[in-house]
Amino acid sequence: MASYDAPLAPASTLAAEDLQDFVRGAAFLGTGGGGDPYVGRLILQQEMTHGSAVRILPLHSLADDALVVPVAMMGAPTVMTEKVPSVPALQRALAVVADRAGRPVDALIPLEIGGINSTMPLVVGARANLPVVNADGMGRAFPEIQMVTFGVYGCAISPVVVANEHGDVVTVDATSNKQGEDLARAVVVRMGGAAHIALYPMTGAEVKATAIPDTLTLALDIGRIIRTARSARVRPEEALFAHVAKLSVPRFSRVLYDGKIVDVRRETRGGFNVGSVTLDGIGDCKGSFKVEFQNENLVAYHDGKVAAMVPDLITLVDRETIEPITTECLKYGQRVKVIGMSVPPIMRTPEALATFGPRAFRLDLDYIPLENIR
Amino acid sequence: MASYDAPLAPASTLAAEDLQDFVRGAAFLGTGGGGDPYVGRLILQQEMTHGSAVRILPLHSLADDALVVPVAMMGAPTVMTEKVPSVPALQRALAVVADRAGRPVDALIPLEIGGINSTMPLVVGARANLPVVNADGMGRAFPEIQMVTFGVYGCAISPVVVANEHGDVVTVDATSNKQGEDLARAVVVRMGGAAHIALYPMTGAEVKATAIPDTLTLALDIGRIIRTARSARVRPEEALFAHVAKLSVPRFSRVLYDGKIVDVRRETRGGFNVGSVTLDGIGDCKGSFKVEFQNENLVAYHDGKVAAMVPDLITLVDRETIEPITTECLKYGQRVKVIGMSVPPIMRTPEALATFGPRAFRLDLDYIPLENIR
Repeated sequence: MASYDAPLAPASTLAAEDLQDFVRGAAFLGTGGGGDPYVGRLILQQEMTHGSAVRILPLHSLADDALVVPVAMMGAPTVMTEKVPSVPALQRALAVVADRAGRPVDALIPLEIGGINSTMPLVVGARANLPVVNADGMGRAFPEIQMVTFGVYGCAISPVVVANEHGDVVTVDATSNKQGEDLARAVVVRMGGAAHIALYPMTGAEVKATAIPDTLTLALDIGRIIRTARSARVRPEEALFAHVAKLSVPRFSRVLYDGKIVDVRRETRGGFNVGSVTLDGIGDCKGSFKVEFQNENLVAYHDGKVAAMVPDLITLVDRETIEPITTECLKYGQRVKVIGMSVPPIMRTPEALATFGPRAFRLDLDYIPLENIR
Repeated sequence: MASYDAPLAPASTLAAEDLQDFVRGAAFLGTGGGGDPYVGRLILQQEMTHGSAVRILPLHSLADDALVVPVAMMGAPTVMTEKVPSVPALQRALAVVADRAGRPVDALIPLEIGGINSTMPLVVGARANLPVVNADGMGRAFPEIQMVTFGVYGCAISPVVVANEHGDVVTVDATSNKQGEDLARAVVVRMGGAAHIALYPMTGAEVKATAIPDTLTLALDIGRIIRTARSARVRPEEALFAHVAKLSVPRFSRVLYDGKIVDVRRETRGGFNVGSVTLDGIGDCKGSFKVEFQNENLVAYHDGKVAAMVPDLITLVDRETIEPITTECLKYGQRVKVIGMSVPPIMRTPEALATFGPRAFRLDLDYIPLENIR
């Protein structure tokens, strides 16, 4: 069995007063997807009010033989704003995975960093007294559950356990990770467009080899920097860019566009939010700008020319407060900045791009790293 | 463990030379559904050629504590004509049910009597050396998997194990039998419109309390009577009607219409064949006639007035040979007779009608027994 006697690094604890910052940063990394951060924060806040502790485990301290399981919401974020996550349903899904593994779960890990899917593992961890690993499988949010570094680097998605709030449980044992997505998605759609999942049961060694490290603390830091820079009356995005440029794995970032939303096309189709948002420039910002999304922002065009593309981050934020805006909350007339940020090299390998690069989204584009565009 | 030392009644064995008769009779009882009997017969024939024995077990000889499991194809019969059943996939589904039950399966039982779904349990039984109970859960074919007497009289549908020919397996644990249908159907549709299922794990005692008895031998007898009456140059349907009137649970039957197909409307929708067939009369038969179906024939109208309705049998047969015609094989210009036949009382209770009476198919009709119409 795994042992967690090693003291946690101070930076990797999460206190109640950090919550707003954490979900803001997670929404930023979520690039428009991952569900409304507001709902996730309320649920986590309530859990903490009941005295549950949120324990964050540094990736390196994970025992090689630990059983680590991601839990998440799956479906269209538009639906999740009405169909609120059920902690018992997530626990039921988790229990089936543990039962199939024949041993108790030692730690949880977020599948992705995004509004609701970075907070729900923390909620379940607090409720079930399980630590949550400071890492995730996307380093951002992606719309499909095979789009994780866990899978890219060899971990199997199955069993994918899908549970709804009524007590129905469906267990998918798929011949490929993509097939796991397709079959689970069909179930999620039938369950009303959103459901609760546990999947990718992994050993600690597998998680250490495949996860994107430190993304929970990165979310917390990004959220905190945006807030503190606001009151310091500096440009929050400049403080943010300076911070990520100094990470142990540095990130490139810049403002891609500064403008006003003049059109939002969005539909809920096949268990996803699919659509695009069009912007007109403000001030010096000229030309038209368009971002296409499938739950998450996938590609940005400036005057028809690619400005950024998956897997690099494309995040729309309020142009004054730099508060991130998820795709289901985009509205005509909003003043926004579009921020681009590079992802770590582990997400840019040929295997990674085959799973979540532009062609994985049927975009007829060869991947160009954000820093090489223009 | 169950014991099967009791000798089988001679009438309940199935020889290779009985196969054509058996599938003909099963297709008759299938009321248009259950899949093309031709495919099912070929697969069973091949299995028998390899020397496998098809053992048919009388319902009453089933041990109370036996584990009995139905196996079937689920989906649109139109799809099944191209996506041929996979015996290994059925065996995989069955193995998951046995594994969940924690004990070996003692006997199989058809979910329904219809083209492919009365032969596939025999094929799996022959391959796995398991007897097949001479009974089923519908006494005919119905489009949905909760529409069985097993469920009507208290047996739980879950786990519903859905398997495809590629090795994907999905296990549905549903809060209701209808929910089991809905979730499994979503999976079947994603698997391409047809898949292999094992479900309703039951004890021998439960099967004896809920199944429609002797339907395998009824199918064989119906098929044999139609064939022998043909060469005897009597009207085959008259011989058939005389036979079923003398069953231990007698059936009422009559020719509802004699005519020519002038229109077929049919689409594959949501994992079903849905549509209607319209007839013009031949000879003394006047007025227009229409049969609506969802995989199986559900309701027949003569000049707009109900002539027969579910759960009573409505079967279209070739007007010369009385060979049954499944809904996916209906064609413009075919000369057919429409035959109505009553079902046993166990299928006409209020509970049974709530599950597979006209209103269960969203038909705004109160059930009237066939013999009371006109």
